Amino acid sequence: MPYELFYWTGLQGRGEFVRLALEEAGADYIDVAREPATKGFGTEAMLQILESAREPHIPFAPPFLKDGDLIVPHVANILMYLGPKLHLAPKDEKLRYVANGLQLTITDMVAEVHDTHHPISGNLYYDEQKKAAKARSADFLRSRLPKFMNYFERVLQQNPSGAKHAIGDKLSYVDLSLFQLIEGLHYAFPRAMKGFATRYPALAALHESVRERPNIARYLASKRRVAFNEDGIFRHYPELDQDPD
Amino acid sequence: MPYELFYWTGLQGRGEFVRLALEEAGADYIDVAREPATKGFGTEAMLQILESAREPHIPFAPPFLKDGDLIVPHVANILMYLGPKLHLAPKDEKLRYVANGLQLTITDMVAEVHDTHHPISGNLYYDEQKKAAKARSADFLRSRLPKFMNYFERVLQQNPSGAKHAIGDKLSYVDLSLFQLIEGLHYAFPRAMKGFATRYPALAALHESVRERPNIARYLASKRRVAFNEDGIFRHYPELDQDPD
Repeated sequence: MPYELFYWTGLQGRGEFVRLALEEAGADYIDVAREPATKGFGTEAMLQILESAREPHIPFAPPFLKDGDLIVPHVANILMYLGPKLHLAPKDEKLRYVANGLQLTITDMVAEVHDTHHPISGNLYYDEQKKAAKARSADFLRSRLPKFMNYFERVLQQNPSGAKHAIGDKLSYVDLSLFQLIEGLHYAFPRAMKGFATRYPALAALHESVRERPNIARYLASKRRVAFNEDGIFRHYPELDQDPD
Repeated sequence: MPYELFYWTGLQGRGEFVRLALEEAGADYIDVAREPATKGFGTEAMLQILESAREPHIPFAPPFLKDGDLIVPHVANILMYLGPKLHLAPKDEKLRYVANGLQLTITDMVAEVHDTHHPISGNLYYDEQKKAAKARSADFLRSRLPKFMNYFERVLQQNPSGAKHAIGDKLSYVDLSLFQLIEGLHYAFPRAMKGFATRYPALAALHESVRERPNIARYLASKRRVAFNEDGIFRHYPELDQDPD
Protein backbone atom coordinates (compact mmCIF):
# COMPACT_ATOMS: atom_id res chain seq x y z
CA MET A 1 0.00 0.00 0.00
CA PRO A 2 1.43 3.40 -0.95
CA TYR A 3 2.23 5.99 1.68
CA GLU A 4 -0.22 8.88 1.69
CA LEU A 5 1.28 12.32 2.16
CA PHE A 6 -1.12 15.13 3.12
CA TYR A 7 -0.08 18.71 2.47
CA TRP A 8 -1.44 21.94 0.99
CA THR A 9 -1.36 22.28 -2.79
CA GLY A 10 0.36 25.05 -4.73
CA LEU A 11 3.48 25.41 -2.62
CA GLN A 12 6.54 23.40 -1.56
CA GLY A 13 6.24 24.34 2.09
CA ARG A 14 7.09 21.90 4.83
CA GLY A 15 5.78 18.99 2.79
CA GLU A 16 8.77 19.29 0.46
CA PHE A 17 11.18 17.90 3.06
CA VAL A 18 9.12 14.71 3.10
CA ARG A 19 8.72 14.58 -0.69
CA LEU A 20 12.48 14.70 -1.19
CA ALA A 21 12.95 11.62 0.99
CA LEU A 22 10.15 9.71 -0.74
CA GLU A 23 11.50 10.68 -4.17
CA GLU A 24 15.13 9.82 -3.38
CA ALA A 25 14.02 6.38 -2.18
CA GLY A 26 11.72 5.86 -5.17
CA ALA A 27 8.94 5.10 -2.69
CA ASP A 28 5.37 4.51 -3.73
CA TYR A 29 3.35 7.45 -2.43
CA ILE A 30 0.26 9.52 -3.12
CA ASP A 31 0.41 13.28 -2.69
CA VAL A 32 -3.21 13.20 -1.58
CA ALA A 33 -4.33 16.83 -1.84
CA ARG A 34 -2.97 17.07 -5.38
CA GLU A 35 -4.96 14.10 -6.63
CA PRO A 36 -8.53 14.44 -7.92
CA ALA A 37 -11.44 14.78 -5.50
CA THR A 38 -13.42 12.53 -7.85
CA LYS A 39 -11.19 9.66 -6.73
CA GLY A 40 -11.64 10.51 -3.05
CA PHE A 41 -8.47 12.59 -2.82
CA GLY A 42 -7.95 16.35 -2.91
CA THR A 43 -7.67 18.97 -0.17
CA GLU A 44 -11.14 17.99 1.05
CA ALA A 45 -9.85 14.52 1.97
CA MET A 46 -7.12 16.18 4.05
CA LEU A 47 -9.53 18.51 5.82
CA GLN A 48 -11.79 15.57 6.65
CA ILE A 49 -9.01 13.98 8.66
CA LEU A 50 -8.05 17.24 10.35
CA GLU A 51 -11.66 17.87 11.36
CA SER A 52 -12.62 14.29 12.12
CA ALA A 53 -14.55 13.79 15.34
CA ARG A 54 -13.82 10.06 15.42
CA GLU A 55 -10.18 9.70 14.39
CA PRO A 56 -8.24 8.63 17.53
CA HIS A 57 -4.99 10.39 16.59
CA ILE A 58 -5.71 13.68 14.89
CA PRO A 59 -2.93 15.89 13.54
CA PHE A 60 -2.82 19.60 14.36
CA ALA A 61 -1.78 20.66 10.85
CA PRO A 62 -0.31 19.39 7.59
CA PRO A 63 2.00 17.85 6.63
CA PHE A 64 1.09 14.43 7.92
CA LEU A 65 1.70 10.95 6.61
CA LYS A 66 -0.72 8.06 6.61
CA ASP A 67 0.68 4.55 6.58
CA GLY A 68 -2.29 2.23 6.82
CA ASP A 69 -4.18 3.32 9.94
CA LEU A 70 -1.28 5.20 11.47
CA ILE A 71 -1.19 8.99 11.09
CA VAL A 72 2.23 10.55 11.65
CA PRO A 73 2.30 14.37 11.82
CA HIS A 74 5.24 16.84 11.75
CA VAL A 75 8.10 16.75 9.26
CA ALA A 76 10.81 15.57 11.66
CA ASN A 77 8.51 12.87 13.04
CA ILE A 78 7.55 11.67 9.55
CA LEU A 79 11.21 11.50 8.55
CA MET A 80 12.16 9.66 11.72
CA TYR A 81 9.39 7.17 10.99
CA LEU A 82 10.21 6.79 7.30
CA GLY A 83 14.00 7.02 7.57
CA PRO A 84 14.75 3.37 8.35
CA LYS A 85 12.07 2.11 5.94
CA LEU A 86 13.50 4.19 3.08
CA HIS A 87 17.13 3.39 4.01
CA LEU A 88 17.73 7.06 4.66
CA ALA A 89 18.54 6.81 8.38
CA PRO A 90 21.61 5.53 10.24
CA LYS A 91 21.54 1.82 11.04
CA ASP A 92 22.75 2.46 14.59
CA GLU A 93 19.59 3.24 16.57
CA LYS A 94 21.34 5.77 18.80
CA LEU A 95 22.41 7.75 15.76
CA ARG A 96 18.77 8.05 14.77
CA TYR A 97 18.38 10.43 17.70
CA VAL A 98 21.33 12.40 16.36
CA ALA A 99 19.60 12.56 12.97
CA ASN A 100 16.35 13.64 14.60
CA GLY A 101 18.18 16.32 16.59
CA LEU A 102 19.68 17.76 13.39
CA GLN A 103 16.31 17.62 11.67
CA LEU A 104 14.70 19.51 14.56
CA THR A 105 17.31 22.24 14.24
CA ILE A 106 16.36 22.45 10.54
CA THR A 107 12.71 22.66 11.67
CA ASP A 108 13.56 25.57 13.95
CA MET A 109 15.39 27.39 11.20
CA VAL A 110 12.50 26.85 8.76
CA ALA A 111 10.11 28.38 11.34
CA GLU A 112 12.42 31.39 11.65
CA VAL A 113 12.54 31.77 7.86
CA HIS A 114 8.73 31.73 7.81
CA ASP A 115 8.61 34.40 10.48
CA THR A 116 10.86 36.74 8.48
CA HIS A 117 7.79 37.50 6.34
CA HIS A 118 5.15 36.80 9.00
CA PRO A 119 6.56 38.04 12.33
CA ILE A 120 3.22 39.13 13.79
CA SER A 121 0.61 36.68 12.54
CA GLY A 122 -0.11 34.02 9.96
CA ASN A 123 -3.62 35.46 9.84
CA LEU A 124 -2.45 38.77 8.36
CA TYR A 125 -1.07 39.38 4.88
CA TYR A 126 2.61 40.12 4.49
CA ASP A 127 1.78 43.72 3.50
CA GLU A 128 0.03 44.22 6.82
CA GLN A 129 3.18 43.37 8.80
CA LYS A 130 5.88 44.63 6.45
CA LYS A 131 7.58 46.95 8.91
CA ALA A 132 8.01 44.19 11.50
CA ALA A 133 9.04 41.82 8.69
CA LYS A 134 11.87 44.15 7.73
CA ALA A 135 13.12 44.33 11.30
CA ARG A 136 12.89 40.58 11.80
CA SER A 137 14.53 39.81 8.45
CA ALA A 138 17.43 42.17 9.15
CA ASP A 139 18.06 40.39 12.44
CA PHE A 140 17.65 36.98 10.83
CA LEU A 141 20.16 37.71 8.07
CA ARG A 142 22.67 39.43 10.33
CA SER A 143 22.54 37.01 13.23
CA ARG A 144 20.52 33.85 12.84
CA LEU A 145 21.41 32.79 9.28
CA PRO A 146 25.17 32.80 9.99
CA LYS A 147 24.61 31.10 13.35
CA PHE A 148 22.65 28.23 11.81
CA MET A 149 24.95 27.91 8.79
CA ASN A 150 28.11 27.96 10.91
CA TYR A 151 26.55 25.23 13.02
CA PHE A 152 25.64 22.98 10.09
CA GLU A 153 29.06 23.56 8.51
CA ARG A 154 30.65 22.44 11.79
CA VAL A 155 28.38 19.38 11.86
CA LEU A 156 29.73 18.36 8.45
CA GLN A 157 33.35 19.28 9.21
CA GLN A 158 33.31 17.43 12.54
CA ASN A 159 31.70 14.28 11.16
CA PRO A 160 34.29 11.59 11.92
CA SER A 161 33.31 9.81 8.69
CA GLY A 162 34.01 12.88 6.55
CA ALA A 163 32.29 16.12 5.58
CA LYS A 164 30.21 14.68 2.73
CA HIS A 165 27.28 13.78 4.96
CA ALA A 166 25.69 15.07 8.15
CA ILE A 167 25.91 11.66 9.83
CA GLY A 168 28.17 8.74 9.00
CA ASP A 169 29.33 8.02 5.46
CA LYS A 170 25.90 7.50 3.86
CA LEU A 171 23.16 9.75 2.61
CA SER A 172 20.41 10.35 5.16
CA TYR A 173 17.19 12.34 5.13
CA VAL A 174 19.08 15.07 7.00
CA ASP A 175 21.31 15.62 3.94
CA LEU A 176 18.22 15.92 1.75
CA SER A 177 16.67 18.45 4.12
CA LEU A 178 19.90 20.48 4.23
CA PHE A 179 19.76 20.60 0.42
CA GLN A 180 16.20 21.94 0.53
CA LEU A 181 17.07 24.47 3.23
CA ILE A 182 20.01 25.85 1.25
CA GLU A 183 18.01 25.80 -1.98
CA GLY A 184 15.25 27.79 -0.30
CA LEU A 185 17.66 30.30 1.21
CA HIS A 186 19.22 30.93 -2.22
CA TYR A 187 15.75 31.58 -3.60
CA ALA A 188 14.56 33.86 -0.79
CA PHE A 189 17.76 35.74 -0.02
CA PRO A 190 20.06 35.81 -3.05
CA ARG A 191 21.93 38.85 -1.76
CA ALA A 192 22.51 37.44 1.72
CA MET A 193 23.63 34.13 0.21
CA LYS A 194 26.36 35.76 -1.93
CA GLY A 195 29.68 34.03 -1.27
CA PHE A 196 27.90 31.11 0.42
CA ALA A 197 30.17 28.46 -1.14
CA THR A 198 33.29 30.28 0.07
CA ARG A 199 32.00 30.71 3.60
CA TYR A 200 30.42 27.25 3.92
CA PRO A 201 32.32 24.92 1.57
CA ALA A 202 31.09 21.63 3.00
CA LEU A 203 27.45 22.74 2.95
CA ALA A 204 27.78 24.02 -0.61
CA ALA A 205 29.34 20.71 -1.71
CA LEU A 206 26.55 18.75 -0.02
CA HIS A 207 23.96 20.96 -1.72
CA GLU A 208 25.48 20.23 -5.14
CA SER A 209 25.91 16.51 -4.53
CA VAL A 210 22.27 16.06 -3.53
CA ARG A 211 21.05 18.01 -6.56
CA GLU A 212 22.99 15.64 -8.83
CA ARG A 213 21.60 12.41 -7.41
CA PRO A 214 19.65 10.73 -10.23
CA ASN A 215 16.32 10.42 -8.42
CA ILE A 216 16.54 13.95 -7.05
CA ALA A 217 17.59 15.43 -10.41
CA ARG A 218 14.68 13.63 -12.09
CA TYR A 219 12.26 14.86 -9.43
CA LEU A 220 13.46 18.47 -9.61
CA ALA A 221 12.92 18.43 -13.39
CA SER A 222 9.45 16.89 -13.07
CA LYS A 223 6.06 18.52 -12.75
CA ARG A 224 5.79 17.10 -9.26
CA ARG A 225 8.30 19.71 -8.05
CA VAL A 226 6.32 22.91 -7.51
CA ALA A 227 8.44 26.02 -8.16
CA PHE A 228 9.34 28.23 -5.21
CA ASN A 229 6.73 30.98 -4.90
CA GLU A 230 5.43 33.63 -2.50
CA ASP A 231 2.91 31.29 -0.88
CA GLY A 232 5.59 29.04 0.63
CA ILE A 233 8.07 29.25 3.47
CA PHE A 234 10.91 30.63 1.35
CA ARG A 235 9.65 33.83 -0.27
CA HIS A 236 11.64 36.24 -2.36
CA TYR A 237 10.74 39.73 -1.20
CA PRO A 238 13.69 41.87 -2.40
CA GLU A 239 13.01 44.49 0.29
CA LEU A 240 13.74 41.91 3.01
CA ASP A 241 17.06 40.80 1.51
CA GLN A 242 20.44 42.40 2.20
CA ASP A 243 24.13 41.84 1.54
CA PRO A 244 26.11 39.96 4.17
CA ASP A 245 28.12 42.06 6.65
CA MET B 1 25.39 6.32 35.38
CA PRO B 2 23.04 9.28 35.87
CA TYR B 3 21.58 11.11 32.90
CA GLU B 4 23.12 14.54 32.41
CA LEU B 5 20.71 17.32 31.49
CA PHE B 6 22.22 20.52 30.10
CA TYR B 7 20.21 23.72 30.25
CA TRP B 8 20.55 27.37 31.22
CA THR B 9 20.28 28.22 34.91
CA GLY B 10 17.82 30.63 36.47
CA LEU B 11 14.76 29.78 34.41
CA GLN B 12 12.45 26.85 33.72
CA GLY B 13 12.53 27.31 29.97
CA ARG B 14 12.48 24.37 27.61
CA GLY B 15 14.53 22.28 30.03
CA GLU B 16 11.52 22.04 32.35
CA PHE B 17 9.67 19.65 30.03
CA VAL B 18 12.54 17.20 30.39
CA ARG B 19 12.89 17.75 34.15
CA LEU B 20 9.24 16.86 34.73
CA ALA B 21 9.70 13.49 33.00
CA LEU B 22 12.89 12.73 34.94
CA GLU B 23 11.26 13.76 38.22
CA GLU B 24 8.04 11.80 37.65
CA ALA B 25 10.10 8.69 36.93
CA GLY B 26 12.40 9.27 39.90
CA ALA B 27 15.33 8.98 37.49
CA ASP B 28 18.90 9.58 38.54
CA TYR B 29 20.02 12.77 36.78
CA ILE B 30 22.37 15.70 37.08
CA ASP B 31 21.16 19.16 36.13
CA VAL B 32 24.67 19.95 34.97
CA ALA B 33 24.72 23.74 34.69
CA ARG B 34 23.27 24.12 38.20
CA GLU B 35 25.99 22.04 39.81
CA PRO B 36 29.29 23.55 40.95
CA ALA B 37 32.02 24.34 38.46
CA THR B 38 34.52 23.11 41.05
CA LYS B 39 33.20 19.60 40.39
CA GLY B 40 33.49 20.01 36.62
CA PHE B 41 29.88 21.04 36.17
CA GLY B 42 28.29 24.49 35.74
CA THR B 43 27.33 26.49 32.67
CA GLU B 44 30.95 26.39 31.52
CA ALA B 45 30.74 22.59 31.12
CA MET B 46 27.69 23.09 28.90
CA LEU B 47 29.38 25.73 26.77
CA GLN B 48 32.39 23.48 26.32
CA ILE B 49 30.21 20.88 24.62
CA LEU B 50 28.41 23.47 22.49
CA GLU B 51 31.72 24.96 21.34
CA SER B 52 33.65 21.71 21.09
CA ALA B 53 35.73 21.33 17.92
CA ARG B 54 36.09 17.58 18.39
CA GLU B 55 32.69 16.34 19.54
CA PRO B 56 31.21 14.31 16.65
CA HIS B 57 27.58 15.20 17.37
CA ILE B 58 27.29 18.77 18.57
CA PRO B 59 23.97 20.26 19.65
CA PHE B 60 22.83 23.63 18.32
CA ALA B 61 21.46 24.84 21.65
CA PRO B 62 20.33 23.70 25.11
CA PRO B 63 18.54 21.72 26.32
CA PHE B 64 20.41 18.54 25.49
CA LEU B 65 20.79 15.25 27.32
CA LYS B 66 23.93 13.22 27.67
CA ASP B 67 23.58 9.48 28.22
CA GLY B 68 27.09 8.11 28.25
CA ASP B 69 28.67 9.23 24.97
CA LEU B 70 25.38 9.96 23.25
CA ILE B 71 24.21 13.57 23.09
CA VAL B 72 20.49 14.00 22.39
CA PRO B 73 19.35 17.58 21.68
CA HIS B 74 15.83 19.12 21.47
CA VAL B 75 13.06 18.56 24.00
CA ALA B 76 10.86 16.31 21.85
CA ASN B 77 13.85 14.23 20.82
CA ILE B 78 15.05 13.85 24.42
CA LEU B 79 11.57 12.80 25.52
CA MET B 80 11.24 10.34 22.65
CA TYR B 81 14.60 8.85 23.67
CA LEU B 82 13.84 8.79 27.41
CA GLY B 83 10.15 7.89 27.17
CA PRO B 84 10.47 4.10 26.95
CA LYS B 85 13.36 4.01 29.46
CA LEU B 86 11.33 6.00 32.01
CA HIS B 87 8.10 4.07 31.28
CA LEU B 88 6.50 7.29 30.12
CA ALA B 89 5.87 6.30 26.51
CA PRO B 90 3.33 3.94 24.91
CA LYS B 91 4.47 0.32 24.63
CA ASP B 92 3.21 0.10 21.06
CA GLU B 93 6.04 1.45 18.92
CA LYS B 94 3.70 3.02 16.41
CA LEU B 95 2.04 5.03 19.14
CA ARG B 96 5.43 6.50 20.01
CA TYR B 97 5.19 8.45 16.77
CA VAL B 98 1.78 9.66 17.87
CA ALA B 99 3.32 10.80 21.17
CA ASN B 100 6.16 12.50 19.33
CA GLY B 101 3.69 14.23 17.02
CA LEU B 102 1.78 15.63 20.00
CA GLN B 103 5.01 16.71 21.66
CA LEU B 104 6.07 18.54 18.49
CA THR B 105 2.79 20.43 18.48
CA ILE B 106 3.57 21.43 22.08
CA THR B 107 7.03 22.51 20.86
CA ASP B 108 5.44 24.70 18.20
CA MET B 109 3.11 26.30 20.70
CA VAL B 110 5.98 26.95 23.11
CA ALA B 111 7.88 28.72 20.32
CA GLU B 112 4.82 30.86 19.63
CA VAL B 113 4.52 31.73 23.33
CA HIS B 114 8.17 32.79 23.29
CA ASP B 115 7.58 34.98 20.26
CA THR B 116 4.71 36.83 21.97
CA HIS B 117 7.38 38.74 23.91
CA HIS B 118 10.17 38.44 21.33
CA PRO B 119 8.54 38.74 17.89
CA ILE B 120 11.46 40.51 16.21
CA SER B 121 14.64 39.11 17.74
CA GLY B 122 16.02 37.17 20.66
CA ASN B 123 18.98 39.55 20.50
CA LEU B 124 16.87 42.56 21.52
CA TYR B 125 15.31 43.24 24.89
CA TYR B 126 11.55 42.96 25.27
CA ASP B 127 11.30 46.74 25.71
CA GLU B 128 12.92 47.23 22.31
CA GLN B 129 10.17 45.25 20.54
CA LYS B 130 7.20 46.03 22.75
CA LYS B 131 4.95 47.39 20.00
CA ALA B 132 5.38 44.27 17.86
CA ALA B 133 5.01 42.13 21.00
CA LYS B 134 1.62 43.68 21.68
CA ALA B 135 0.43 42.97 18.14
CA ARG B 136 1.74 39.42 18.19
CA SER B 137 0.31 38.70 21.65
CA ALA B 138 -3.12 40.01 20.67
CA ASP B 139 -3.14 37.67 17.68
CA PHE B 140 -1.81 34.79 19.76
CA LEU B 141 -4.49 35.16 22.44
CA ARG B 142 -7.33 35.76 20.01
CA SER B 143 -6.46 33.10 17.46
CA ARG B 144 -3.62 30.73 18.28
CA LEU B 145 -4.24 29.96 21.96
CA PRO B 146 -7.85 28.81 21.35
CA LYS B 147 -6.76 26.89 18.26
CA PHE B 148 -4.08 24.95 20.15
CA MET B 149 -6.26 24.42 23.23
CA ASN B 150 -9.26 23.26 21.19
CA TYR B 151 -6.95 20.82 19.47
CA PHE B 152 -5.50 19.36 22.67
CA GLU B 153 -8.97 19.17 24.22
CA ARG B 154 -10.11 17.18 21.17
CA VAL B 155 -7.06 14.91 21.48
CA LEU B 156 -8.14 14.04 25.03
CA GLN B 157 -11.85 13.78 24.22
CA GLN B 158 -11.22 11.56 21.17
CA ASN B 159 -8.80 9.23 22.98
CA PRO B 160 -10.53 5.85 22.65
CA SER B 161 -9.13 4.89 26.10
CA GLY B 162 -10.71 7.91 27.78
CA ALA B 163 -10.01 11.62 28.25
CA LYS B 164 -7.66 11.25 31.22
CA HIS B 165 -4.55 10.91 29.08
CA ALA B 166 -3.33 12.12 25.71
CA ILE B 167 -2.53 8.58 24.54
CA GLY B 168 -3.90 5.30 25.81
CA ASP B 169 -4.87 4.80 29.45
CA LYS B 170 -1.47 5.50 31.04
CA LEU B 171 0.50 8.60 31.89
CA SER B 172 3.02 9.58 29.21
CA TYR B 173 5.52 12.38 28.91
CA VAL B 174 2.98 14.16 26.70
CA ASP B 175 0.63 14.50 29.70
CA LEU B 176 3.46 15.97 31.76
CA SER B 177 4.28 18.47 29.02
CA LEU B 178 0.62 19.47 28.69
CA PHE B 179 0.63 20.16 32.43
CA GLN B 180 3.66 22.43 32.06
CA LEU B 181 2.17 24.19 29.05
CA ILE B 182 -1.10 24.95 30.88
CA GLU B 183 0.79 25.93 34.04
CA GLY B 184 2.89 28.37 32.02
CA LEU B 185 -0.11 29.83 30.22
CA HIS B 186 -1.85 30.47 33.57
CA TYR B 187 1.26 32.29 34.78
CA ALA B 188 1.81 34.37 31.64
CA PHE B 189 -1.78 35.14 30.66
CA PRO B 190 -4.08 34.98 33.73
CA ARG B 191 -6.71 37.14 32.03
CA ALA B 192 -6.79 35.14 28.81
CA MET B 193 -6.95 31.91 30.80
CA LYS B 194 -10.07 32.98 32.74
CA GLY B 195 -12.74 30.31 32.40
CA PHE B 196 -10.18 27.80 31.12
CA ALA B 197 -11.63 24.87 33.10
CA THR B 198 -15.10 25.54 31.71
CA ARG B 199 -13.93 25.80 28.13
CA TYR B 200 -11.43 22.94 28.26
CA PRO B 201 -12.62 20.53 30.97
CA ALA B 202 -10.48 17.54 29.98
CA LEU B 203 -7.31 19.65 29.79
CA ALA B 204 -8.06 21.27 33.13
CA ALA B 205 -8.63 17.86 34.73
CA LEU B 206 -5.37 16.54 33.29
CA HIS B 207 -3.55 19.62 34.60
CA GLU B 208 -4.87 18.97 38.12
CA SER B 209 -4.22 15.24 38.06
CA VAL B 210 -0.58 15.71 37.04
CA ARG B 211 -0.03 18.33 39.74
CA GLU B 212 -1.25 15.86 42.37
CA ARG B 213 1.02 13.00 41.38
CA PRO B 214 3.30 12.36 44.37
CA ASN B 215 6.62 12.75 42.55
CA ILE B 216 5.44 15.84 40.70
CA ALA B 217 3.95 17.43 43.86
CA ARG B 218 7.22 16.79 45.69
CA TYR B 219 9.24 18.24 42.84
CA LEU B 220 7.05 21.35 42.52
CA ALA B 221 7.50 22.01 46.26
CA SER B 222 11.27 21.50 46.09
CA LYS B 223 14.08 23.95 45.47
CA ARG B 224 14.80 22.18 42.20
CA ARG B 225 11.69 23.77 40.71
CA VAL B 226 12.67 27.30 39.66
CA ALA B 227 9.74 29.73 39.90
CA PHE B 228 8.33 31.16 36.68
CA ASN B 229 10.02 34.46 35.92
CA GLU B 230 10.57 37.00 33.16
CA ASP B 231 13.69 35.26 31.83
CA GLY B 232 11.80 32.16 30.71
CA ILE B 233 9.42 31.24 27.92
CA PHE B 234 6.27 32.04 29.90
CA ARG B 235 6.53 35.67 31.01
CA HIS B 236 3.90 37.69 32.78
CA TYR B 237 3.79 41.09 31.13
CA PRO B 238 0.32 42.44 32.05
CA GLU B 239 0.27 44.74 29.02
CA LEU B 240 0.37 41.69 26.71
CA ASP B 241 -2.53 39.91 28.42
CA GLN B 242 -6.20 40.37 27.61
CA ASP B 243 -9.59 38.89 28.40
CA PRO B 244 -10.91 36.16 26.11
CA ASP B 245 -13.38 37.23 23.41
